[in-house]
Amino acid sequence: MVHHVHVFIQLKDGVLDIQGKAVAHSLLSLGHSSLQSVKVGKYIQLWIESETAASAKEQASAMCDDLLVNGIIEQFRIEVEGE
Amino acid sequence: MVHHVHVFIQLKDGVLDIQGKAVAHSLLSLGHSSLQSVKVGKYIQLWIESETAASAKEQASAMCDDLLVNGIIEQFRIEVEGE
Repeated sequence: MVHHVHVFIQLKDGVLDIQGKAVAHSLLSLGHSSLQSVKVGKYIQLWIESETAASAKEQASAMCDDLLVNGIIEQFRIEVEGE
Repeated sequence: MVHHVHVFIQLKDGVLDIQGKAVAHSLLSLGHSSLQSVKVGKYIQLWIESETAASAKEQASAMCDDLLVNGIIEQFRIEVEGE
């Protein structure tokens, strides 16, 4: 069956998030004064043909290592629907 | 208190996801033949000072409308931690 996999990628703690700072600056300029901080990352959805959710998760993790995630500066979290 | 808010942004159904297609092509080239489809979106984390989680969610929604999301081609989902 086809599993719907959600991958959330963000910069590791300690890596300067320029894009996040730019977005925060813009939102504050627009009057959103309750905003404390912003982090910008990627949200990738994968549909993977696999017998089990666990195997889909493993394959998604391999895709992250191979292409989707820059392990030097980024970290990721994977959720499989129905897991 | 400061609420940690997660915003997931993706293209609306029917909008061509060029980036997703490019990523899918690359992953298939790398041998991930179980992959059926890919969608690439944005994952934005906001820290918002607010009395209640509901109010933090409302403010995040306003930020999406004002800046973060292009309502013509994108849709979003908001999760507040501890809600």
